[in-house]
Amino acid sequence: MTATQAFIAACAEILGAPHVLTHAHDTEPFLVDWRKRYRGNACAVLLPADTAQVAAVVRLACQHRVAIVPQGGNTGLAGGATPDASGAQAVISLKRLNRVRGVDPHNNTITVEAGVVLAEVQARAEEAQRLFPLSLAAEGSCTIGGNLATNAGGTGVLRYGNTRELCLGLEVVTPQGEIWDGLRGLRKDNTGYDLRDLFIGAEGTLGIITAAVMKLHPAPVAKVTALAGLASPHAALDFLSLAQHHAGALLTGFELMSDFSMRLVGKHFPQLRYPFGEPHAQTVLLELSDSESAEHARALFERLMEEALDKGIVEDAVVAENLAQSQAFWGLREHIPLAQAEEGLNIKHDIAVPISSIGRFIEETDAIIARTVPGVRMVTFGHLGDGNLHYNVQAPEGIDVQRFLGEFQTSINALVYDQVHRHRGSISAEHGIGQLKVDEAMHYKSPVEVRLMQTIKAALDPDNLMNPGKVVRWNATLAKENLA
Amino acid sequence: MTATQAFIAACAEILGAPHVLTHAHDTEPFLVDWRKRYRGNACAVLLPADTAQVAAVVRLACQHRVAIVPQGGNTGLAGGATPDASGAQAVISLKRLNRVRGVDPHNNTITVEAGVVLAEVQARAEEAQRLFPLSLAAEGSCTIGGNLATNAGGTGVLRYGNTRELCLGLEVVTPQGEIWDGLRGLRKDNTGYDLRDLFIGAEGTLGIITAAVMKLHPAPVAKVTALAGLASPHAALDFLSLAQHHAGALLTGFELMSDFSMRLVGKHFPQLRYPFGEPHAQTVLLELSDSESAEHARALFERLMEEALDKGIVEDAVVAENLAQSQAFWGLREHIPLAQAEEGLNIKHDIAVPISSIGRFIEETDAIIARTVPGVRMVTFGHLGDGNLHYNVQAPEGIDVQRFLGEFQTSINALVYDQVHRHRGSISAEHGIGQLKVDEAMHYKSPVEVRLMQTIKAALDPDNLMNPGKVVRWNATLAKENLA
Repeated sequence: MTATQAFIAACAEILGAPHVLTHAHDTEPFLVDWRKRYRGNACAVLLPADTAQVAAVVRLACQHRVAIVPQGGNTGLAGGATPDASGAQAVISLKRLNRVRGVDPHNNTITVEAGVVLAEVQARAEEAQRLFPLSLAAEGSCTIGGNLATNAGGTGVLRYGNTRELCLGLEVVTPQGEIWDGLRGLRKDNTGYDLRDLFIGAEGTLGIITAAVMKLHPAPVAKVTALAGLASPHAALDFLSLAQHHAGALLTGFELMSDFSMRLVGKHFPQLRYPFGEPHAQTVLLELSDSESAEHARALFERLMEEALDKGIVEDAVVAENLAQSQAFWGLREHIPLAQAEEGLNIKHDIAVPISSIGRFIEETDAIIARTVPGVRMVTFGHLGDGNLHYNVQAPEGIDVQRFLGEFQTSINALVYDQVHRHRGSISAEHGIGQLKVDEAMHYKSPVEVRLMQTIKAALDPDNLMNPGKVVRWNATLAKENLA
Repeated sequence: MTATQAFIAACAEILGAPHVLTHAHDTEPFLVDWRKRYRGNACAVLLPADTAQVAAVVRLACQHRVAIVPQGGNTGLAGGATPDASGAQAVISLKRLNRVRGVDPHNNTITVEAGVVLAEVQARAEEAQRLFPLSLAAEGSCTIGGNLATNAGGTGVLRYGNTRELCLGLEVVTPQGEIWDGLRGLRKDNTGYDLRDLFIGAEGTLGIITAAVMKLHPAPVAKVTALAGLASPHAALDFLSLAQHHAGALLTGFELMSDFSMRLVGKHFPQLRYPFGEPHAQTVLLELSDSESAEHARALFERLMEEALDKGIVEDAVVAENLAQSQAFWGLREHIPLAQAEEGLNIKHDIAVPISSIGRFIEETDAIIARTVPGVRMVTFGHLGDGNLHYNVQAPEGIDVQRFLGEFQTSINALVYDQVHRHRGSISAEHGIGQLKVDEAMHYKSPVEVRLMQTIKAALDPDNLMNPGKVVRWNATLAKENLA
């Protein structure tokens, strides 16, 4: 019996044979990411039922030197949850850890296991008259464990922060198969190193998150949206400042959509009406979440829009008159990625720069790309209030897309990331590193930062068994120092 | 020439002799904490002028094996910035790193060096029509570097979070004397391990914070306070839920003050008027920060108080009619520690429990302490909205205070911390561990958590030269593994 076979047999003993998948037919859905960009192999897919079983399996993996790839809802965009091609790694799916352990309305917290689907967390919060503000396209199938492992962003970050800011405590299985019970529901705790935030965003390379205490917020009484047409990203920045001055923490959404983004939506989803007679170079979607009433929010919007029109910051504006219209405005924003997919393959970038640099970043980078590929079409949209742009490059009209990608993808990526780096930005604002951007991350980070990351990885996971190859390059020298 | 003498000579060459203090008369203010609870010795107090000088000094310390104690405004409450008694350690004061490197209103950030005094950060934000919400008693002399190193809390946490939540990026000198430039002003950046939050709250044991990018918020147009009298901590919890429902993110303060706290203020500061005719078991101070107007905030308060009175949650309530009255209400809260000092020495605890457990925690713990020391007087007050209590124990009236402390301090500490532990709370909510609570922290944390902390410490600072003895006990076995 090989070490791998012994590992699988021992896992079957602990989990029960039905929860150790080895047949291609059973393992298939766990070995390919949902966009089908990454395909891996695995010696087994393991489905533990609880934290103790996760810990037991990790101890077996240590003993038999089997590398482990944790997986949540398998909705990631960077291949972080897909094993490598060797067939030597084991996938641990957290799907069966799907219990809500408790809701504490007075503490404004919910304690959930890693495999609970995001939409269920939202629903359980709502039942308790609270808001769990994390919201993103995959919310019907992504899991809170995956959200934490990748520090997911989404549409509520402006007011409520990323997943990191929504987490108070974690339960984690360490690379040695021990259970760290850090499930504290405290707003303040200054008793040592911030282990919680080290595991959040580490994409399973330092341990496996098995449960978490998440923050809830008071549920707003009303959400109202508005749209504004503007002449430039610079005007959008002035508008953001003005909106924050008027609305403070009530402002929960501020999304930028370029003219071509809106044209694409109009072309592929003509039933979605762009509410302005004329096109605008930029359209901004605003959302207010109000504790008083929809009328209060609308009145606030009216005052804001009046001042913005007076000052020449916006060219036109419309405030949603009812819930249906609010949702219709969001519909324009949400259909951009779908319209883009209809239009054909493109080169995507999920980047962030300081908010104050967005105008210059777009101008400069648009110009460089236009020089490189004349006729290229920019689908620029995203969370302006967070400095986070989906800065996507669509082939010129009528050009063969595969040829376009083959010829330009590498150079356009390098060009965009160089620009991001120049503006002290991030090459992965909300999607993480996974296997997609390891090389780029190692390239753009300073040697000091790479070394700090590698030192932490080697110290916590000296055998490099936790999701190896993701996030950070393994540094064998540091590891040897540890193992000597 | 000894190694220490060689180190000092080399430092003088880099910093200039006037910035290397070795005479007792010059070093004295750096060797005693401001409450005069800790006194240490040092081979030298070093005053670098910039980050490069800090890095150079740390490289010298590595070379000569001199341990280093970083110090900001020296206002800490846990002895974290005071060297040990040996006289072998060197203090690095960050005072001369006191430049504001830039304010970026569109990005809502300010970039400051570690030695900038908190009040100056607030003032510079205000000049830019922004709010830097960190606020605490020592703000006139504490520095932002110290606030970050201890993850300071204060009165704005309910809405704006601790210092951790206000920081976007750091510049840090590592234990090897390298400079990590993590000065990113981004709301979203998912490109690897969260090094920033590892250094925040580590009290200088993993590196020296030399600069930071801090978040600014829109400045509110008006701040209005109100007071309410209630029958119990349980009622205060119901009131908090109701206030959050009404006010959402406008609620920026929710402070609990026990009856005896108010009596102490009345006794020692009779000019501060308690606005209710009758005493109440608990008094709550609320603050609204409004983007519209003071009138809007007052109207919101009136609606809240009406419903709270109707429902029998509060016994009496008063909304401040003007700024002077708002400040007078805060005055009652701020004079509690001063009144307590007037009354005589006492046993202090800075603890946090889940907000939902506060009522039970106070009831149970009050009862146990009353059984242990009949006639004891409880000065309980603090940031109820954060679950953070200053749970202080004053000697029974007429008892000799020194005898009381000698007889009961150890047992009362143990009793309170056991209770905190039982309620899954924190024995240091906002003051940190320093040298004051290392033993307690190691005792109450799980072996897994202690080991994780020690592993990180040994990996990043293998020679244990960064503020040794603070926050975490050194684990020689782990260190030997590293050095082997």
